[in-house]
Amino acid sequence: MTYQEILENARTCMGPYCKSCPVCNGLACRNTVPGPGAKGIGTGFIRNYQKWQELCVNMDTICENKIVDTSFTLFGQKAALPVFVAPVGALTLHYGDKLSDLQYNDILVPACADAGIAAFTGDGTNPAVMEGAVGALKRSGGCGVPTVKPWNMEAVREKLELVKTADPFAIAMDIDAAGLPFLKNMTPPAGSKTVDELRQIVEWAEKPFLLKGIMTVQGAKKALEAGASGIVVSNHGGRVLDQCPATADVLPAIVDAVGGRMTVLVDGGIRTGMDVFKALALGADAVLIGRPFVNMVYGGGAEGVKVLVEKLKSELADTMAMCGAHTLSEIKRSMLYGF
Amino acid sequence: MTYQEILENARTCMGPYCKSCPVCNGLACRNTVPGPGAKGIGTGFIRNYQKWQELCVNMDTICENKIVDTSFTLFGQKAALPVFVAPVGALTLHYGDKLSDLQYNDILVPACADAGIAAFTGDGTNPAVMEGAVGALKRSGGCGVPTVKPWNMEAVREKLELVKTADPFAIAMDIDAAGLPFLKNMTPPAGSKTVDELRQIVEWAEKPFLLKGIMTVQGAKKALEAGASGIVVSNHGGRVLDQCPATADVLPAIVDAVGGRMTVLVDGGIRTGMDVFKALALGADAVLIGRPFVNMVYGGGAEGVKVLVEKLKSELADTMAMCGAHTLSEIKRSMLYGF
Amino acid sequence: MTYQEILENARTCMGPYCKSCPVCNGLACRNTVPGPGAKGIGTGFIRNYQKWQELCVNMDTICENKIVDTSFTLFGQKAALPVFVAPVGALTLHYGDKLSDLQYNDILVPACADAGIAAFTGDGTNPAVMEGAVGALKRSGGCGVPTVKPWNMEAVREKLELVKTADPFAIAMDIDAAGLPFLKNMTPPAGSKTVDELRQIVEWAEKPFLLKGIMTVQGAKKALEAGASGIVVSNHGGRVLDQCPATADVLPAIVDAVGGRMTVLVDGGIRTGMDVFKALALGADAVLIGRPFVNMVYGGGAEGVKVLVEKLKSELADTMAMCGAHTLSEIKRSMLYGF
Amino acid sequence: MTYQEILENARTCMGPYCKSCPVCNGLACRNTVPGPGAKGIGTGFIRNYQKWQELCVNMDTICENKIVDTSFTLFGQKAALPVFVAPVGALTLHYGDKLSDLQYNDILVPACADAGIAAFTGDGTNPAVMEGAVGALKRSGGCGVPTVKPWNMEAVREKLELVKTADPFAIAMDIDAAGLPFLKNMTPPAGSKTVDELRQIVEWAEKPFLLKGIMTVQGAKKALEAGASGIVVSNHGGRVLDQCPATADVLPAIVDAVGGRMTVLVDGGIRTGMDVFKALALGADAVLIGRPFVNMVYGGGAEGVKVLVEKLKSELADTMAMCGAHTLSEIKRSMLYGF
Repeated sequence: MTYQEILENARTCMGPYCKSCPVCNGLACRNTVPGPGAKGIGTGFIRNYQKWQELCVNMDTICENKIVDTSFTLFGQKAALPVFVAPVGALTLHYGDKLSDLQYNDILVPACADAGIAAFTGDGTNPAVMEGAVGALKRSGGCGVPTVKPWNMEAVREKLELVKTADPFAIAMDIDAAGLPFLKNMTPPAGSKTVDELRQIVEWAEKPFLLKGIMTVQGAKKALEAGASGIVVSNHGGRVLDQCPATADVLPAIVDAVGGRMTVLVDGGIRTGMDVFKALALGADAVLIGRPFVNMVYGGGAEGVKVLVEKLKSELADTMAMCGAHTLSEIKRSMLYGF
Repeated sequence: MTYQEILENARTCMGPYCKSCPVCNGLACRNTVPGPGAKGIGTGFIRNYQKWQELCVNMDTICENKIVDTSFTLFGQKAALPVFVAPVGALTLHYGDKLSDLQYNDILVPACADAGIAAFTGDGTNPAVMEGAVGALKRSGGCGVPTVKPWNMEAVREKLELVKTADPFAIAMDIDAAGLPFLKNMTPPAGSKTVDELRQIVEWAEKPFLLKGIMTVQGAKKALEAGASGIVVSNHGGRVLDQCPATADVLPAIVDAVGGRMTVLVDGGIRTGMDVFKALALGADAVLIGRPFVNMVYGGGAEGVKVLVEKLKSELADTMAMCGAHTLSEIKRSMLYGF
Repeated sequence: MTYQEILENARTCMGPYCKSCPVCNGLACRNTVPGPGAKGIGTGFIRNYQKWQELCVNMDTICENKIVDTSFTLFGQKAALPVFVAPVGALTLHYGDKLSDLQYNDILVPACADAGIAAFTGDGTNPAVMEGAVGALKRSGGCGVPTVKPWNMEAVREKLELVKTADPFAIAMDIDAAGLPFLKNMTPPAGSKTVDELRQIVEWAEKPFLLKGIMTVQGAKKALEAGASGIVVSNHGGRVLDQCPATADVLPAIVDAVGGRMTVLVDGGIRTGMDVFKALALGADAVLIGRPFVNMVYGGGAEGVKVLVEKLKSELADTMAMCGAHTLSEIKRSMLYGF
Repeated sequence: MTYQEILENARTCMGPYCKSCPVCNGLACRNTVPGPGAKGIGTGFIRNYQKWQELCVNMDTICENKIVDTSFTLFGQKAALPVFVAPVGALTLHYGDKLSDLQYNDILVPACADAGIAAFTGDGTNPAVMEGAVGALKRSGGCGVPTVKPWNMEAVREKLELVKTADPFAIAMDIDAAGLPFLKNMTPPAGSKTVDELRQIVEWAEKPFLLKGIMTVQGAKKALEAGASGIVVSNHGGRVLDQCPATADVLPAIVDAVGGRMTVLVDGGIRTGMDVFKALALGADAVLIGRPFVNMVYGGGAEGVKVLVEKLKSELADTMAMCGAHTLSEIKRSMLYGF
């Protein structure tokens, strides 16, 4: 199947909310929650997407004509390109009952491993979700990043013990999940964590630890102070708080503050290999992409994952060649117009 | 009833002008006067709303996870959150004949007191309007702010004597009402007042006095010079003069000029707790919200007021938690992106 | 008749091109020539209008409450407000055959004099046009400004001798008419004039002389050097060259360069008394308004002129009062937001 | 036939993709490839067009009234105006089967020579395309610029030998064709070239050599270093890489860096003589126009070319006269507003 065919197929089986739009930009779903939309009036998602489109690249083809290498290594895990699948949860609720979280992970995790990338898996109030993810990760040799929600400390510790049994190459926590309704009113309280609490969690993890949901220089510095190996500059696709700036807006200053001392990933509205190039040019080490992989899994299963990975890799390589970068490390901020 | 249900209900009983739009942003009513729209070509209202949407907040959830306190005190009057209801008059004319000014106040004032906030009440050429408002305020223990129009000095003095009988915690004057057609051609003349005249009025009031309708640093300084306890940065929702800047545009400079020496409130296009957060981050002490409360009273009576107050409080608390502010005093301008 | 009724009436008798739009902003007619639109792709007209809308005014009603005086004097000619009617020609061609240039002037010139303002009259290849205008001006005691096209020097001299017989209080030349197709290919050549040629023309005029069609500081300085008494900052409503900046864009720098040493008028997209206020705040002494008066004359004759003049005067006075200016000389650039 | 009639006629015979829009701005065709659209999401074409529209010109008609001369000479070849036809290939694929590349060139090349300009001709995988172009150029006395694709060095050498037989006044290479799919996977590899390789190619050419597809100062300097006589600032109309800046964005800095030391041409979204004026004001020596000439050839044959050339010349002359420039060398950057 082609990318277009998979997208069309997804349109037939994604419940009432997601429209499997030709371009996944947050306009058709806006503030549709449940559904793929964003919180509040839905501008968080739209801004994320839009900002990448405003950035322009500096084409320069007076250079050697050689093979472009898009390969990337994160904490020892090799990837065919600097792209990971973002964690998505509550699939049935938001994307229709074709797939449960467990079924989704069972397709996604091995498909990513086969396609040369790795998936971040999500978490949920139902313990079976993380157990299922751990099972899928085990079967793929730990090729994935389980993402633990910021439960209370005791619950976090238990989840970490569980996920470590899959021997993943990294573990993440989406600290901004504090903004999700279902986490808010738990007893004992879930949500925000202090630097001291995070330091304890990092210690428990015994794996490279990624803090996802950083949107300020100050937050990035606290993550560094807590001992995280990396951060994901992210506003959770606009789903935890409305009216955040675009991740592309805040990325450069965060890279300037902590880049080189920790890994900096970014997500939010990244849709093409061109967008991936721009994120790397702004200083990110790699990116996460979420919703489009859901469309691919619903519409094409493992094949869908493969097709999107190939599309992204091809677009990234093309952009790199046209801007005169032949390895990821040659991508510079000066390859963006006006920078 | 839910907020959505009340809004839908309002749609059935708000006369021909107000459409009870899903988002009250000045687009559908534009220059509809009579009606809820604005003067001239109607951009004053639209700009007010739009400017809040352009501001972005800095999410940071690496912090202690503790209860958020939205409580606020104005001139000794405690409120559950830093929100007041803006004065609205000529209800029948602008919003349909379901409610007269007197009936509206009889519902609104006690409903606000019950919901933990306070209402500003309006004024009119018909003396019964202010008399009714005073009655409503008396029955609610002075929990409200009667707002006197800038009549001629003698008329102002009489109105002040009347409103003081309700022992309100503050008295206001919408000095920008000079732009309302019905005030323009009165004899003796009503409208603009000099600093000296205002100083006399403040003295007569014998209560904390708020000047509403300030849009410049110079105007704020004159209000301070006249002895006002506070100002409301406001362009009357665009209804007294077209083509004013948004209140969010002028607020920061006004706060920088007079903040700390007098209370600074703001209104104009504030619709959500997120907007309230932004106003406070720019330096306002609290905000006024007008039109949306009219929709609530028409569509749901006292229950409508309660539902909107709870919605605003919840949104404000959520935004505060996601930006790491646990009391109003912790909300800083640096919590807005780019500031 | 009301303004709305006259506009509606105009809609029934303005030929196929002008739509008598509720707001005359250049969108519906764009590049309709013949017709009221602009040259090229029509952005010149649209930009003119749009720029005024982007400017915001600083409301401040803490001031004395006194009568606003909008009266203005140009070269000894008193006017009720600082507004003149811009010269319009080829009426039948552009606005439909209800009125010829002669009939239009015969209605417009006395109607303006009666309403307390003055009209600029246009010129044409047919000598009868200027002869008719001169007749109308004579019958109104010279209350108007005949506007001579930049013919060859000999033809200009003849026209000047003719118009002086009406003893107008000023004479103008639309120097930018060099861009009109019908002027381009005349023999001897019409169009652009050097400073020396203009100095000669000014001398021949023996009246205060206005150069209309100045869009640069350099052009304004040359007009001053040529001995003109004033200029009209104008791009001919977009009809002589596409893609000019808005007149409101270039006005401030031109005023800063020659203001005080010569009269500076401005036209282009000015539609309301609010726009007039903004033009004066930017430094213009007065404004010209064109197309809307054509709509008024077609739709309401002399009454239409009166109604529009009253509307403009009322809007201007209202804006002045709300910004604390009680005479035209009190209108300052600081009354615009951001200046 | 008039310009409008030719455009309407083109609409009947341009295959399924090109709509022969009233304004050729990239909106209707966006990402239509095959077809006249651009790569990726199609913003490259749209941005090119849009940027010219944002630039405004400084009208000033106080100057001598004399004949405007638009004539231009490039490497000894005289042209009636500083406009060349951009190379277009694969006509049947993108614009419908009315014309093959050979038939198109056979109409275009002599029509251009007759109309006083010159055409750049394209290249293709089929050797007959360049052979046909060479034939057409021979028959027009070398009045044209054959444009060789960046094949591997050996293939380039062969092509150069072929095109030199037509004795053209210049030879070009579209170095950015590296981004075209059909070039990517050739063996030996085609595409990007180093400065050293280009120096060799320039030497082989033995004619003034133009490098087309330069979008950065760095690229322009490399072209100069390689010995090119000139460059074409171009992003291939958005067809080789999405999300490039507009050519008008990058032109001024490139002119400042290499202007005076080499010829600087520009293309991308230039549609009118007004746009040509703006390009020259920014510092270009001349411009290339592509798609509109395809519409003219399909809709009107040689007559279409003549009509468009006359239209462009008339618009350019008009703009020059209205801005006070009577020869191309008098067009200055200060004739653009804000520069």
